[in-house]
Amino acid sequence: MRLDKLETPCLILDRVKLAANIAALHARLKRLGVNLRPHGKTAKNYDVLRMALADQAGGITVSTLKEAEYYFEHGIVDIVYAVGIAPVKLDRIAALIKKGARLSVILDSLAQARSLAKRARMHNILIPALIELDCDGHRSGITADDPLLVEIGRFLHTNAHTALAGVLTHAGESYNCRSIDAIRALADTERDTAVHCAAKLHRHDLPCPAVSVGSTPTANFARDLSGVTEVRAGVFMFYDLVMAGLGVCALEDIAVSVLGSVIGHQPKRGWIITDAGWMALSRDRGTTSQAIDQGYGRVGDITGVPLGDLIVTGANQEHGIVARRAGSTTPGPHLAVGDMLRILPNHACATGAMHDRYHVVDGGLEIVDVWPRINGW
Amino acid sequence: MRLDKLETPCLILDRVKLAANIAALHARLKRLGVNLRPHGKTAKNYDVLRMALADQAGGITVSTLKEAEYYFEHGIVDIVYAVGIAPVKLDRIAALIKKGARLSVILDSLAQARSLAKRARMHNILIPALIELDCDGHRSGITADDPLLVEIGRFLHTNAHTALAGVLTHAGESYNCRSIDAIRALADTERDTAVHCAAKLHRHDLPCPAVSVGSTPTANFARDLSGVTEVRAGVFMFYDLVMAGLGVCALEDIAVSVLGSVIGHQPKRGWIITDAGWMALSRDRGTTSQAIDQGYGRVGDITGVPLGDLIVTGANQEHGIVARRAGSTTPGPHLAVGDMLRILPNHACATGAMHDRYHVVDGGLEIVDVWPRINGW
Repeated sequence: MRLDKLETPCLILDRVKLAANIAALHARLKRLGVNLRPHGKTAKNYDVLRMALADQAGGITVSTLKEAEYYFEHGIVDIVYAVGIAPVKLDRIAALIKKGARLSVILDSLAQARSLAKRARMHNILIPALIELDCDGHRSGITADDPLLVEIGRFLHTNAHTALAGVLTHAGESYNCRSIDAIRALADTERDTAVHCAAKLHRHDLPCPAVSVGSTPTANFARDLSGVTEVRAGVFMFYDLVMAGLGVCALEDIAVSVLGSVIGHQPKRGWIITDAGWMALSRDRGTTSQAIDQGYGRVGDITGVPLGDLIVTGANQEHGIVARRAGSTTPGPHLAVGDMLRILPNHACATGAMHDRYHVVDGGLEIVDVWPRINGW
Repeated sequence: MRLDKLETPCLILDRVKLAANIAALHARLKRLGVNLRPHGKTAKNYDVLRMALADQAGGITVSTLKEAEYYFEHGIVDIVYAVGIAPVKLDRIAALIKKGARLSVILDSLAQARSLAKRARMHNILIPALIELDCDGHRSGITADDPLLVEIGRFLHTNAHTALAGVLTHAGESYNCRSIDAIRALADTERDTAVHCAAKLHRHDLPCPAVSVGSTPTANFARDLSGVTEVRAGVFMFYDLVMAGLGVCALEDIAVSVLGSVIGHQPKRGWIITDAGWMALSRDRGTTSQAIDQGYGRVGDITGVPLGDLIVTGANQEHGIVARRAGSTTPGPHLAVGDMLRILPNHACATGAMHDRYHVVDGGLEIVDVWPRINGW
C-alpha cells in the first residue's frame, strides 16, 4: 500500500534515514571506543532497538517498566530503568528480575536505597542500582562534590540485597545549548562528572562497573570519552526539529513525520487547515526558544520535500493550521482538499507518544511494514 | 484498591465532581431550552458520555472516527463527526452508515461536498452534512456573509446522495477570552452567526434542521440561545486549569488529575522530582498566557487538596519538577520519596490523551472502577 491510501493523521518512519542515523552514531562511538546503550523511550519499538543494538554490547535504557517488559519479551535482557526509582514500582521490577532480566534501577537518595533493599529482601533477590549524578542542574542526581555519593555507594555495595552497578548522568541541558561549542563543553562536563565520581567510589574501595553518560547532543559532539563505559541516547535514531535547530542533525536526517490531509482553507488569512492537530503532533513547542521557531512542525509534501516556508502555526485537538512562517516572502503552494502533507516534528519523543504504530517506508511512498509503539506505563 | 497502591503515573477521575459538572450544565441548558450534544473527544469513554446524555436527545459529537465506531458499538446512533471531512475518511464513514449509524459530517467547501457526493453515490448511500461556520476567526468554516453558504447548501440539498443537515459553529476563541463579559459577547456572536445562516438558508428554500453551537465557555455563559437547536461541549465534564483561569469553573470542580510519586529532591533549588512528566501531563501549557501561569499543572496531596503554591514548573518525558510558584511566600510542604501527589491538568483533553484508562473514585481514595479511553484514530 502507498502512503496516499493511508487514513490521516498517522506516523511515518523512513527506515533509510533511521538506518543512516544509527550507523553514523555507531561509527562515531566506535572511534571513541565506547559502547552504545540505546534508549528505548523514543522509538518504543523493538524493530528499531534491534537496529540500534547492532555491534553493541546488547544493553538498553528504558523510561517505563512497560518498555522494560516489552523489550525483555523480545529477548533484551540487560536493561537500565533510567527514572529515579519510586517505591510503588519495586514489585514489578522484582517480577522482571525473577524472570531473568538483568534490570538495574537508578537513585539519588538513601531513602530510595533503603526502600530498594527492603523490598529486594522481601522478594529474596538482588537489585542492582546506579547512582544518578547531576552534571548540569537539569533535574535529578547528586552533584560530584556531595558526600552522599559514597554513603549511597557503600549502602548499595554492603547490603545483601542490592549491588552498586555504577554511576549514571544525563546532560539534559544540552537541549538548551545555543552553540556546538556549548554542547562540546557540556559533553566534557558530563564525562568529567561521571569519571570523577567513579574514581571517588574506587578510592573508597567501592566498585563502579558502569560509567554511563548520554544525551543525543552530547553523544554527537563529545570529543573524548575516556573512562566512560557506555553512552545512552535515543532521539538520534529519529532526530527532530529541535535537534536540527541545535545543529545536531540536518533537516534531511529527520526520519519521522506525521502524515496529514488538507481539509480546508481560509484564503483571507493564508491558512490551510489539516487534520493533523496536537493530537497527532503533540503540544511540544521545543523550537520556540530556538533561532528558527518551527511552530508545531515543518510542512512538506507527501514525499517529505519541504513546501516553501510552510509550518504549522496553530494546533487544536484534531486541526492544524498551516501557514507561511512570519516574515516569509516565498509564495505558498496551492494545496487542494485531500492533498497530503508530511510534517516534521519538533520533538520525536513527544510526537511519537501520540501514536500507537509506525508506517514504515524505505525512502519512497510504499509502506513496507507497520511497527507498534509501546506507550503507557 | 486504594489510590496509594496504584502504580504511578496514572489518571484519576472523580465521579462525584464529574456528575456535578454534568448536572450543572444540564440544568443551565434546560433553562435555556436547548439540547446538549455532548462532545466525546474529552472523555473518549462511554461511561462518561452516558452520564452526559441523561435527559438529552441522545446525539453526540466526536473528533475521530475511532470515537464514532466505539460510541456506536455502545449503542449511540446519532453522531456528528465535527472535523472537516477529508476524502480519505469517506469509506470508513460509509461503513458506519451502512451499519445503521446516523452519522453526519461537516464541511466548508464545494470541493468537500462534491467528493462527499461522489463517494456516497459509489456506496449507494446518503451522507448528511452540516455546513461549518466561522463565527470568530478561530480556524475553519465560512463566514456568515459568504455566498458559499447557499451554494454549498443547495448542492447538499439537491444531490441525491447528500443531505443538508444544518449549520454548525464552534467559538474556539472563547478559550482566549480575558473576561466573562467577553465570553458572553462571543456566545451572542456564536448564536447570531448560526441563527443568521440558518435563516439565510431558509430564505433560499433550503432546510436547516440543526442549528448547532458550542464550546465549554460559551455553553456556560450564553444568556439566550433562541433559534439554536443544540449545544456541543466536552471539557465541561472534567474542567481543567485553563477553564478555572477563565472563570468558567472553580479549581474544586476539576474532576481529573494525574497521580504521581515523589522520586527525589533537589533541596538547594527547592525542587521535588516526581514521575509525572510530560508523558503523563502532556506538553500543554494553556495557562501560560493567563493571569495565573500554572506551569504543567497544580499540585495537591493524594486527596487532591492543593499543597500551598506548588506547581509543576518543568517537565521531561518521565520527570516532573515540582516547585513553588515564582514569588510565592508560602513555605513548601515536606514530601518524602514515595509520597503521592494529585496534579490538576492545564487542559483535560490533552492530559487525558496521554492515558489509556481512568481510575475512578467517588470523592475518596477508594478506586470504584476503571474506565478505558479510546485514543487514536
